[in-house]
Amino acid sequence: MEKKPSAQQEQPARRREKDLLGEAWVPASAYYGIQTQRARENFDLSGVRLSLFPQLIKALALVKMACAKANNRLGLLDDTKAEAIEAAGKALLEGRHHDQFVVDMIQGGAGTSTNMNANEVLANIGLEYLGYQRGEYAHLHPNNDVNMSQSTNDAYPTAVRLAIVLKHGELVQALSSLRDAFAAKGEEFADIIKMGRTQLQDAVPMTLGQEFQSFASTLGEDIERIGGLSELLKEVNLGGTAIGTGINTDPAYAQLAVGYLSQLSGFEFKRASDLVEASSDMGAFVLFSGMLKRLAVKLSKIANDLRMLSMGPRCGLNEINLPPQQPGSSIMPGKINPVIPEAVNQVAYQVIGNDIAITMAAEAGQLQLNAMEPLIAYNVLESIRMLTQAMEMFRNRCIRGITANRENCEAMVDRSIGIVTAVNPYIGYENATRIAKQALESGRGVLELIREEALMSEEELNEVLRPANMIRPRPRVAAAERVAG
Amino acid sequence: MEKKPSAQQEQPARRREKDLLGEAWVPASAYYGIQTQRARENFDLSGVRLSLFPQLIKALALVKMACAKANNRLGLLDDTKAEAIEAAGKALLEGRHHDQFVVDMIQGGAGTSTNMNANEVLANIGLEYLGYQRGEYAHLHPNNDVNMSQSTNDAYPTAVRLAIVLKHGELVQALSSLRDAFAAKGEEFADIIKMGRTQLQDAVPMTLGQEFQSFASTLGEDIERIGGLSELLKEVNLGGTAIGTGINTDPAYAQLAVGYLSQLSGFEFKRASDLVEASSDMGAFVLFSGMLKRLAVKLSKIANDLRMLSMGPRCGLNEINLPPQQPGSSIMPGKINPVIPEAVNQVAYQVIGNDIAITMAAEAGQLQLNAMEPLIAYNVLESIRMLTQAMEMFRNRCIRGITANRENCEAMVDRSIGIVTAVNPYIGYENATRIAKQALESGRGVLELIREEALMSEEELNEVLRPANMIRPRPRVAAAERVAG
Amino acid sequence: MEKKPSAQQEQPARRREKDLLGEAWVPASAYYGIQTQRARENFDLSGVRLSLFPQLIKALALVKMACAKANNRLGLLDDTKAEAIEAAGKALLEGRHHDQFVVDMIQGGAGTSTNMNANEVLANIGLEYLGYQRGEYAHLHPNNDVNMSQSTNDAYPTAVRLAIVLKHGELVQALSSLRDAFAAKGEEFADIIKMGRTQLQDAVPMTLGQEFQSFASTLGEDIERIGGLSELLKEVNLGGTAIGTGINTDPAYAQLAVGYLSQLSGFEFKRASDLVEASSDMGAFVLFSGMLKRLAVKLSKIANDLRMLSMGPRCGLNEINLPPQQPGSSIMPGKINPVIPEAVNQVAYQVIGNDIAITMAAEAGQLQLNAMEPLIAYNVLESIRMLTQAMEMFRNRCIRGITANRENCEAMVDRSIGIVTAVNPYIGYENATRIAKQALESGRGVLELIREEALMSEEELNEVLRPANMIRPRPRVAAAERVAG
Amino acid sequence: MEKKPSAQQEQPARRREKDLLGEAWVPASAYYGIQTQRARENFDLSGVRLSLFPQLIKALALVKMACAKANNRLGLLDDTKAEAIEAAGKALLEGRHHDQFVVDMIQGGAGTSTNMNANEVLANIGLEYLGYQRGEYAHLHPNNDVNMSQSTNDAYPTAVRLAIVLKHGELVQALSSLRDAFAAKGEEFADIIKMGRTQLQDAVPMTLGQEFQSFASTLGEDIERIGGLSELLKEVNLGGTAIGTGINTDPAYAQLAVGYLSQLSGFEFKRASDLVEASSDMGAFVLFSGMLKRLAVKLSKIANDLRMLSMGPRCGLNEINLPPQQPGSSIMPGKINPVIPEAVNQVAYQVIGNDIAITMAAEAGQLQLNAMEPLIAYNVLESIRMLTQAMEMFRNRCIRGITANRENCEAMVDRSIGIVTAVNPYIGYENATRIAKQALESGRGVLELIREEALMSEEELNEVLRPANMIRPRPRVAAAERVAG
Repeated sequence: MEKKPSAQQEQPARRREKDLLGEAWVPASAYYGIQTQRARENFDLSGVRLSLFPQLIKALALVKMACAKANNRLGLLDDTKAEAIEAAGKALLEGRHHDQFVVDMIQGGAGTSTNMNANEVLANIGLEYLGYQRGEYAHLHPNNDVNMSQSTNDAYPTAVRLAIVLKHGELVQALSSLRDAFAAKGEEFADIIKMGRTQLQDAVPMTLGQEFQSFASTLGEDIERIGGLSELLKEVNLGGTAIGTGINTDPAYAQLAVGYLSQLSGFEFKRASDLVEASSDMGAFVLFSGMLKRLAVKLSKIANDLRMLSMGPRCGLNEINLPPQQPGSSIMPGKINPVIPEAVNQVAYQVIGNDIAITMAAEAGQLQLNAMEPLIAYNVLESIRMLTQAMEMFRNRCIRGITANRENCEAMVDRSIGIVTAVNPYIGYENATRIAKQALESGRGVLELIREEALMSEEELNEVLRPANMIRPRPRVAAAERVAG
Repeated sequence: MEKKPSAQQEQPARRREKDLLGEAWVPASAYYGIQTQRARENFDLSGVRLSLFPQLIKALALVKMACAKANNRLGLLDDTKAEAIEAAGKALLEGRHHDQFVVDMIQGGAGTSTNMNANEVLANIGLEYLGYQRGEYAHLHPNNDVNMSQSTNDAYPTAVRLAIVLKHGELVQALSSLRDAFAAKGEEFADIIKMGRTQLQDAVPMTLGQEFQSFASTLGEDIERIGGLSELLKEVNLGGTAIGTGINTDPAYAQLAVGYLSQLSGFEFKRASDLVEASSDMGAFVLFSGMLKRLAVKLSKIANDLRMLSMGPRCGLNEINLPPQQPGSSIMPGKINPVIPEAVNQVAYQVIGNDIAITMAAEAGQLQLNAMEPLIAYNVLESIRMLTQAMEMFRNRCIRGITANRENCEAMVDRSIGIVTAVNPYIGYENATRIAKQALESGRGVLELIREEALMSEEELNEVLRPANMIRPRPRVAAAERVAG
Repeated sequence: MEKKPSAQQEQPARRREKDLLGEAWVPASAYYGIQTQRARENFDLSGVRLSLFPQLIKALALVKMACAKANNRLGLLDDTKAEAIEAAGKALLEGRHHDQFVVDMIQGGAGTSTNMNANEVLANIGLEYLGYQRGEYAHLHPNNDVNMSQSTNDAYPTAVRLAIVLKHGELVQALSSLRDAFAAKGEEFADIIKMGRTQLQDAVPMTLGQEFQSFASTLGEDIERIGGLSELLKEVNLGGTAIGTGINTDPAYAQLAVGYLSQLSGFEFKRASDLVEASSDMGAFVLFSGMLKRLAVKLSKIANDLRMLSMGPRCGLNEINLPPQQPGSSIMPGKINPVIPEAVNQVAYQVIGNDIAITMAAEAGQLQLNAMEPLIAYNVLESIRMLTQAMEMFRNRCIRGITANRENCEAMVDRSIGIVTAVNPYIGYENATRIAKQALESGRGVLELIREEALMSEEELNEVLRPANMIRPRPRVAAAERVAG
Repeated sequence: MEKKPSAQQEQPARRREKDLLGEAWVPASAYYGIQTQRARENFDLSGVRLSLFPQLIKALALVKMACAKANNRLGLLDDTKAEAIEAAGKALLEGRHHDQFVVDMIQGGAGTSTNMNANEVLANIGLEYLGYQRGEYAHLHPNNDVNMSQSTNDAYPTAVRLAIVLKHGELVQALSSLRDAFAAKGEEFADIIKMGRTQLQDAVPMTLGQEFQSFASTLGEDIERIGGLSELLKEVNLGGTAIGTGINTDPAYAQLAVGYLSQLSGFEFKRASDLVEASSDMGAFVLFSGMLKRLAVKLSKIANDLRMLSMGPRCGLNEINLPPQQPGSSIMPGKINPVIPEAVNQVAYQVIGNDIAITMAAEAGQLQLNAMEPLIAYNVLESIRMLTQAMEMFRNRCIRGITANRENCEAMVDRSIGIVTAVNPYIGYENATRIAKQALESGRGVLELIREEALMSEEELNEVLRPANMIRPRPRVAAAERVAG
C-alpha cells in the first residue's frame, strides 16, 4: 500500500501541546509552544511585540544560559541539556529566531508569558540542536530544564534589568554625541555677543557660545548620572525564585547563577541582599525612569530655547537659524518650521507620560510580587528607545547645522537697557534704576543718559560698558569704594 | 514583436520631485511624494505609522473630499480635478493604499507631514484616475488643488477630530457590551448574600449581584458621558486656514466645506464660532482624554476588586472564580493567576500616562497654533484603541466566565460582626459598639451576645438580623421609638 | 475676702469623653468631641484644616440639617432634637464656630473624621441651644441623632459634592470676569495689525484684537463646560448609608433627605440611581478635575503667550506691555518681569499635579468604598480655590492694564515675508515659494520681487497685500481663474 | 522738657518706602520693606507663606551671611555693614522674625520676592542692630549691601538647595526610624509561617518576619539613595549673579562666597562648573523629587499590603492586626479601620502629584532662567515635609503596635495547595501540576494525593513539605537525580 502523498501529513501545519489547562494547537513551524500561544491569544493590547526589543530577548537568553550553567555545575542539569540550552541561547544572541517572541509587551501575569515564551523557544531550538522534533519536551523541557531553579519572578526581572543595561549604552552614546555637538557649537559661537534673557525680559550680555556650552554642560551631567543609576539595575533577585525565599534552589545556586550572568554578559551583577524585598520592589525602575524624565525635561527645555531663539525670520528674535528639513506649510510658501525640536518636545512629553504609567504600575505591586512589571519594562525600554532616536535626530538634523545671525545678536545688545546693570556697582542700584526707567520712557540710550549726568568718567564708562567685559566677573574695588563713599 | 528589455527602463525604480528645499528621489511606485519622503527620513520616533490608524486616513480623505466639493461649488476647482479628488478619496475610504501613509505618528510640524502625506497620496491616486503618471502635478497638484483653501492648521485638526469621532463608536460598543456582561452577572448572582467591605474591613451584608450590578452601573454612566463629550469634537476650525483668519478662502467657503463634511461623514459638524481660537485650542482633546482617563480609572478599580475577591484559592477571600486563561507560573504547578484583570490595570495606567503627555502637549501650544498636536492625536487615538481592546478582552476572557462561591460568601456573613450595625437603631450606637467589641475580643457571635443581654426580643432579632433584610432600606419606626424612649 | 475658688473648678479646662476605644480628654471649650480629638492627634499631614474651606463646613451643615428634617418627618427624630440640629446648622451657615473644624484635610478613614467633626460640633452647639452642657450627649447624640440614618459613606461624599457646587460659583464668576477683560482688550486692539505666528515662525497677518478675542473665546467655552459638568456633582448617594444598600434607613428616607437638601441648599440634587455604585465611585470628581485641568492648560497657554508677546523691552517681540507690578530684579536696575503670568503658570502646574493625585486616589478605591476621598476632596477644592485666586489676580493685576505697541506690531508686518501667502492663489504655490525663498536669501521685500517679475498687476497687488485684507476671507474667483488658466 | 503727647506720632503706624515703581506704605513695625509689600499684595495663591518653611529662611540667612563675608573680605563691604548683616542673619538662624517672611510660596518672579523679602528683613534687623530706624537704607541697603554681588538668580537657588539639605536630615531620620520599626517587627515575627502570595494568589510559604524585614530592606535602600542624591544639591551657582556670567562680581568672589557658605552651614558646597548652565537648570530638583516619588511609591505599597493583610476581622486574611487609633465608622459599631496606612497612601499620591507639578515647572524654564523655581521649591519642600510627618505617624501610630495572628497564618499554610511547588523537583512540573489540579477540584489535600499515588517516600515528603524547609534554599541533589532519571 502506498502512503507517499502523506509527506505533507508528516509535516503537519500544527502540533498539539499540553499544559495545566489542557491541550491546544501550535503552528508546527513555531519554536514557541502552548503557553506562548495562549498568551498571544489573550493579549492584543499595545500591538508591540517582545521582538521589537532585541535587547530583552538577548537578556532572556543570557539569564537562561547562566542558570543552565549553574544548574549543570550543581549536578542538577546534565551536560547534554546544558549544552543544548547554551546553543539555543547563542542563536538568540546572534539575532536569530527573534520573530518567535510574539507576546504583546503589555500582558497580565507578571511576565510569565514572556518567560515562558523564552523557555519554550529555547527548549525547541535546543531540541532541534539535539536532533529532536519541536515539542518533544521529554528531552528538553521548557519548565523542568530551561526554567530549572527559576521562577518568572526572578528570571524575568533579572532579564528586564539586563535588557536596560544592554540598551542604555546606546542612550548614553547618543547623549554623549549630542553633548559634543552642542559643545562644538559653543566653541563656534564663542565670540558672538548677545543679550541674555531672564523671565523673557532683556537681562545682561553673554555670548552665544556660553549659551550653547550650557546645553552641552547640562547634558554632560546626565551622562554621569545615568551611568551612576544604571548601577542600581545590576542588583538582581536571581535565585529568589517564586517569592524570594529561594524555594527549589540549592543554597549555592544563587551566587553561581549571578556569577555566570556577570561572566556571560560582561556586566558585573550582584545578588540583592534581601531577595524577598527584591522580588516585589520596582524602586530601581522608578528612579531610573525619573532620571529619563529629567533628561526629557532638559531636552525639551533646550528644544524650546532653540525654537525661541530662531523665531522669525523677520518678526522674531532671529538670533540663530535652524537648518531646514522640510517645507513648513501646505499653504504658506517659503515657510520653514523648527520641526526637529518640535519632535524632540513631543518625545519628551511622552517620556514624562510613561513615567506616570511606570509610577502607577510600581505602586500597584501587592504582597510578594508586582504583577504590573511588564508595563514597567515596556515603558522604560520604550522611553530609552525614543530618547535615543530623538537625540540622534536632534543632533544630525538640527544642532550640527545651526548657524548664527551675529549682526542681529550684537545689534540687540547695543540698543538694550540691560547693560545698565554693569554700572550698578559704580552709581548704585537707585541711580541705575532711575537711568533705566528714563531710558525706557524716553527711548534714549543708557550710555547717553549716564554721560549727560556725568555720573561716571568717560574711561570708566568705556571700560565698564564694553560687552566683552560684561560676560564674566571683573575686579571692582574702585567702584565699590565709590559707592561706599 | 520585441520591446521587452526597455520595460524595466520605462518603469524606473524612482522618480524625482521638487519642493521648497530642492529636489529628492521618491520610489516610483509610491503614491506619496517628496514632502512625505522628507518627513519619513526626519522622523523615526514612535515606530508607529499613520497607517495603523485607518480612521485617521479615512478622516483625512473625507476632509479633502469635502473641501474639493466646496472649492468646486465656488468655481475655484474645475470638475475634472474635483472628480479626481473624490475618486481618490473613495479609494482611501475603501481601505486601499493605506500603506502609503508612512509618516511616524510622532512628528514635528504640527501635522504638516500628515496633511502633505494625504495631499500627495490623493493627488497621485487622482492623477492615475485621470490617466496621468504619478508626479505629473501640473494636472492635479497636492498643494494648489488637493489642499486648496486649506492649511494643515485647519485640515489636520478637523481630520483628527473626525478620526476620533469615527473611532469612538467602537469604544462605546465595547464599553456597552462590557456593561451588559456585568449586568448579566448582576442578575445571575442576585441572591448570593456576602459581606460588603469598606476600607477593607468587614462592613454590612449585600448581595454579590448588587456588587456586579454596581460595575455595570458605573460603566453605564460613561457610555452617556463619552457620547456627550464627543459632541465637542464636532466643532471644527475648517475654513480658518493658516491661523484662523481664513486667509485665501472665499467668505462662503467655510460654511460650505463644513456642510459637505457633515454630509459625507454622516456626522453633524459645526464651524467653531471663533476660528482664531479654534486653531490653537486643544481643550476638546484635553477634556476627552480626561474622560478616557476616568474610564480607565473605573476599569482599573473593577479589575482590582475582581482580583481581590478571587484571592485564593485557599488562603484568600475566594468569593468568586475568574476563568483560567493560561498557566500562572513557570515554577508553581497548578497556579492560575488573574492575568486578564492585570492586563486591564496596565492598559489603564498607560492611558493615565498618555493623558499627561496630552496635557503637556496642549499646554505647549504657542501663539496661533499648537505644534504638538500630532502627539495629542496619537495618544488620544491610542488610548481609545487600547481601551477598546482591553474591554473586549475583559468581557470575553474574564467577566463572562466568572463563577461564584456561594457557600463561602454566605459563611463569611454568618460569622461576621458587621451585622451588629443592623441592631444599631434598636439598641443604640453605644450598646452596639460594646457588643461588637465584646464579640471581637471573645470570639463569640453577635447574636449570642445580644440574646444573653436580652437587649432585643427574639422575634425582633430574627427579623432584623436576617441577611436578606439587611441589603435594603426597611421601615424602623418601632425601633426608633425604642431608642428615643 | 472670698474669691470663689470654685469658679475655676466649675469651668474645668477639659472634659472627659468616651468612645469605642475608651476615654479621652477634650478641651472644655471645644464644640468638637473625642473622635475629632483623636483624629487631630492622628493626622498632622497637609497642615491645612477643614476650616480653610468654609463651603465644606456649610455643606456638612446643610446635609445634617436635611437628614434631621427627613428623620423628623419619618417620626424617627423628635421635634426638639430636630430643632436643635437645625439651629446648630444655621450657626455654621452663618460662619460661626468654623474654628471648631480642626481635622487635617488629609486624613485616613474615608472622611469619618470630617463627618464626626461635624456631628460632634453640631451636637454640642445643639446642646447649648437646648440649654445643656457640652458633652451631655444623652440629650443630643452625635451618632444616634445628628448622624441618624446616615453613614460617613453617604453623608460625607454628599457634603463634598455640595461644597464644590457652592464653591464653583466663585470659580465661574472669576472666569467670566477674566473672559470679559480679554474681550474688552479684544475690542480695544481691534484695529492693530500684527503678524500671526505658527510654530513660532512668521505666518500671516491678523489683528491684536483677534488674538485677545481668542483668549476670551477659549475661556468662554469653559464657563459653559464647567457649568455642564457641575451638574454631575448634583447626583448624590445620600440614603445609601454604609455601602449603598441603605441599611438602617426607612424606605422613604433617601428621597426625603435629598429633597430637603435641594430645598435648603437651593440646588437641585438627585439621588443616584445605583447607590451601591455611588458609594465607591469617584468618577464625577475625576472628570471635574479633568475639566479644571483643561482650564489650567488654557490659562497657562495664555500666560505663556502674553509673556512672549511682551518680551523686551528692546530685544524681543515687544508687541504688548504688561503693567508693572513690582521691581523685577535685585541686581538689574529697571527690570520689570511678567510676574503675574508667571504665577498663573505655576498655579496651572499645581492644578495639573493635583489632578494626578486625584486620579491615583480614585483608582485606589476598593470594594464598597473609596477610602482616599479626603485627598480627592482636598485637591478638588484646593484647585478651585487656587484657580479662582489666580484668575482674579490675572485680571486685576495684568490683563486690564495691558497696552499695545502699535508701531512695532505694524512694522513687523511690513517687513515680513509671510504676506506672500496672500498671493498664493494668484501666482500659485510654487511661484510664491520661489519668491519667498528669494526674499529670505536676498533680504529684499516680497512686494518688490513680485513687481520685478510682473507676476501681478499693481492694482491686484495693492489690493491683495493690504494687511487689512489679509485678516479675513475674501472672494477670489478672479485669482483662481488665473491659476487654473 | 515735655515732649510726651507726640510719642504716638513719633511712632507712626506705617512708613513710606520707594522703589522702581514709585512709593508705597509699609507697616512701621515691619522688618520687610516695599518690595515684599508689593509681592504680598500681588500673590495670594497657595495661602502658604515662606514662614512655614523655617529651613528656607535659615538658608536665606546663611547665603546672605556668606556673601557679606566674601564682600567684606574683598573690601567691597565695610566692617560695620558686614557685622550688621551677620547679626541680622544670626537672629533668623535663632528663629526670630520668621513672621516677617510673608510672601506666598507660589509667586511669579523666579524668587525675586523671596530674595527681596530676605534682603529687606536683614537690612532692617541690621539697621536696628546699628541703632538706626527701619527704612534708613542709606546706612544698610537691601540691594546695594545685603544683596551685594548677588542676584536673585544665584542667591535664591542656592538658598533653596541649602533649605532642602537642611530639611532632608529630618526626612532621613524619620525614614531610618521607620525602617528600624519594620526590622524590629521582622525579628518579632521571625518564626511565624504564612503563605506568600503572588498576583494575589496563594504561592509558597514564607515567614511573616521575612515579609516585615522586606519592608525594612526596601526603606533601607532609600536611606542610602536619598543621601547620595542630596549631594547633587550641594552644587550651587552662587557667584553667577544674573545669568551665570558673574557680572558685577569680583573674579575671586564666587569661590570665597561658596567657601563661607560651607563653613557657616556645615555642609560642603561646591561651585557648579558651568554657572550659566546652573542658573537655569532644575535637573537636581527633578531627580530629587523623582527620588521622593520613589519613596512615596514604596510607602504606598507597604501601606496597601498592611491594609490587605489586616482585612477582617472575620471575613478577610486577618494575618495581622493594626493598632486601633479611632472608631472607624459613624454608623457601624465596633468597626476599626486602617486609618493610618490610608493616610500614608494619600500623602504618597500627593507627593506623586507634586512631582508632576515640579516636572512641568522645570520644563517651563526659558533661556537663562527658570521663572517657575518658586513652585519647584514649594513642592520639593512640601513633599519632604509631608513624607516626614507621614513616616513618623506611620511608625508611632501603626507599625510599632502591629500584632500577628499566628494560628490563622499557619492554618492557611496547612490547607494551601501552593506547597506542591516544593515537590516539583522531585516529581516533575507536570506531575505536580496534575496533583495541584486534582486537589483544587476535589477539595482534598496535596499531601494526601501524593501519598495516594506513592510518588514520593514518606520520609522525603515529611522532609520536603515541612514549612520551615520551604522558606529558604535547600540542597536538592537527590531529587534532581530522580527527575533526571
